[in-house]
Amino acid sequence: MPVNYETTPDFAGRRARLAAAIGALGADVLVISDLVNLRYLTGFTGSNGSALVRTDGPDLIATDGRYRAQVAAQAPGLDVLIERDTVTALVALLADHQGELPLRVGFEADAVTVAQFAGLSVLLDRAGLELVPLRGTVEKLREVKDDGEIAQIEAACRLGDKALATLIERDGIVAGRTEREVARDLEWIMYGCGADAIAFETIVAAGANSAIPHHRPTDAVLASGDFVKIDFGAVVGGYHSDMTRTFVLDQASDWQRAIYQIVADAQHAGRMALLPGAALADVDAAARDVITAAGYGEQYVHGLGHGVGLAIHEAPGIGAAATGTLRDGATVTVEPGIYLPGRGGVRIEDTLVVTDSGARSLTTSPRALQVL
Amino acid sequence: MPVNYETTPDFAGRRARLAAAIGALGADVLVISDLVNLRYLTGFTGSNGSALVRTDGPDLIATDGRYRAQVAAQAPGLDVLIERDTVTALVALLADHQGELPLRVGFEADAVTVAQFAGLSVLLDRAGLELVPLRGTVEKLREVKDDGEIAQIEAACRLGDKALATLIERDGIVAGRTEREVARDLEWIMYGCGADAIAFETIVAAGANSAIPHHRPTDAVLASGDFVKIDFGAVVGGYHSDMTRTFVLDQASDWQRAIYQIVADAQHAGRMALLPGAALADVDAAARDVITAAGYGEQYVHGLGHGVGLAIHEAPGIGAAATGTLRDGATVTVEPGIYLPGRGGVRIEDTLVVTDSGARSLTTSPRALQVL
Repeated sequence: MPVNYETTPDFAGRRARLAAAIGALGADVLVISDLVNLRYLTGFTGSNGSALVRTDGPDLIATDGRYRAQVAAQAPGLDVLIERDTVTALVALLADHQGELPLRVGFEADAVTVAQFAGLSVLLDRAGLELVPLRGTVEKLREVKDDGEIAQIEAACRLGDKALATLIERDGIVAGRTEREVARDLEWIMYGCGADAIAFETIVAAGANSAIPHHRPTDAVLASGDFVKIDFGAVVGGYHSDMTRTFVLDQASDWQRAIYQIVADAQHAGRMALLPGAALADVDAAARDVITAAGYGEQYVHGLGHGVGLAIHEAPGIGAAATGTLRDGATVTVEPGIYLPGRGGVRIEDTLVVTDSGARSLTTSPRALQVL
Repeated sequence: MPVNYETTPDFAGRRARLAAAIGALGADVLVISDLVNLRYLTGFTGSNGSALVRTDGPDLIATDGRYRAQVAAQAPGLDVLIERDTVTALVALLADHQGELPLRVGFEADAVTVAQFAGLSVLLDRAGLELVPLRGTVEKLREVKDDGEIAQIEAACRLGDKALATLIERDGIVAGRTEREVARDLEWIMYGCGADAIAFETIVAAGANSAIPHHRPTDAVLASGDFVKIDFGAVVGGYHSDMTRTFVLDQASDWQRAIYQIVADAQHAGRMALLPGAALADVDAAARDVITAAGYGEQYVHGLGHGVGLAIHEAPGIGAAATGTLRDGATVTVEPGIYLPGRGGVRIEDTLVVTDSGARSLTTSPRALQVL
């Protein structure tokens, strides 16, 4: 896939920042095996690969023979090793290290499985290597987006806004259609608008199904008076958008208007709390307190939001148990909800970028209750 | 998602067979954290969950609050634990074990990361537990499909056959269209035919791009005389199909016909070699030898095939370095190819079920070269 940036990302700069970070964490080299991190650091988008980022010495990428041409095109500045088991091959390469001290080989403890680790440990017996588990090192760099990344996420969000508006204009969300039909139409329109891919399986949940936070579209038929909750996103240049809107068909009842307003108020409070340096748990609480005060705390069964970028879910997680603070340049969702089993539910979600003058919403579809 | 079987799978029977297997491997209980294995054993399709399968005592499934209603509907016979970090919660539950001997807790070494394992190890300090890494235990059960599973895979294959035929009938694969347009049309037709999902991102590779084994569709325009390689699949009831066909537009040249015939011969040899008990490496060799003898061994850069089921790639892998044998009831692909960089490539792939009277192809689109 052609990387669809206005300007090519500064992959070498990202790797240099990473090299500085791993040096500070006590490693001489980091084996990158998480594929999203690999893309972030090299531009390579194949389904099998890993890379070495060194504090001292040239970086190296490995993939298998299927991707020989692709890796040369996407990561032109990097030396390439062609092997099927890329992680083992890269660590084996390091195993001829001849320094006075053992080479400290960092690895991604959240990407390497216990079985892979056991395979690597065998290599250590014959070499002056030491394995250093690292967590979240690349993810922490990815958390703060550069201007090119924000532009991509904004493009994906705009595309989603436009697709949803088009679906509504075409009377795509009306009684008598099935959840699946609505979902497939929305995805088709996103492709028509130029999406590279769908960000995740589109959620269309009507009536009582809207009380299921992560509902997969079924052949259930939309009916007059239903809540219809739609959670969807597009991918542009590898970057994701994420938005939820909840509609009512034909006529909204009092209980529907009441819980919608509570969620809208909570979402507003959450958006206002998005400031650089804010504790993530406080951001969650700003929205959650509104719902709890209204008596629906037990019916809000998930966290407030999550980072969005090359992955649909990435750092930071914004929830009641989150530690850490919000960083300037993070792109995150704010998505409180109330779910009443057997009756229906509401979620309102935007994707926003954190700036020192507050959060800017990259998704811009109307947030007020729309009766279709 | 409603499980779309004619009859409900025998989840309890699968768990009972697993319990017998893990007992023989020296574990008293297995923590299932691979989501595909979890679905196979329980029917649950959420994005977060794990389960305990015990040699002695009731099984248990864990997921988070978003899936409370879904897990009750999909896994009605199982006790449910609602927690965010399901693996830790399940192992913590076991930690009050009061037996004379330590409880031997198996875990999936190919699914548990080094970081998760470190978290579990902390729990062990306060309990009479012993962690036992296991590999491929559930995957080995999944390798042999039951009649219901074969029916699902066949339904997905038929759907793919029909979608491709429809695309051709509608003049969807012709000079002047882009790879992306062809890919999106084929996916749209699959949805129209009732696919629950697309098995993987459809590969449409025209002209020189057909020499890239795993090419992502671009805005490249199909031209007269091009090879057009299409690798795609559908999902029905959770089960995948996988098929590749390579066409030529308008008129085939001699070199195209020549390499097409070699791949077709190799694919035929591979299909004929699919017999219960055959060594996997011998099956690979049966096809590879044809291509090597024709002088293109270096241009065939991947293995012969792989299992297909609830995952698009699963056991057994059929390659030159594979160990083990083919089992009666396995569903596998046979997909040799020749790739000539800068010129073009051919792959022909079917999904087949292994039976004691030979392999039966579940994909049935014509294999002879079609000039469109």
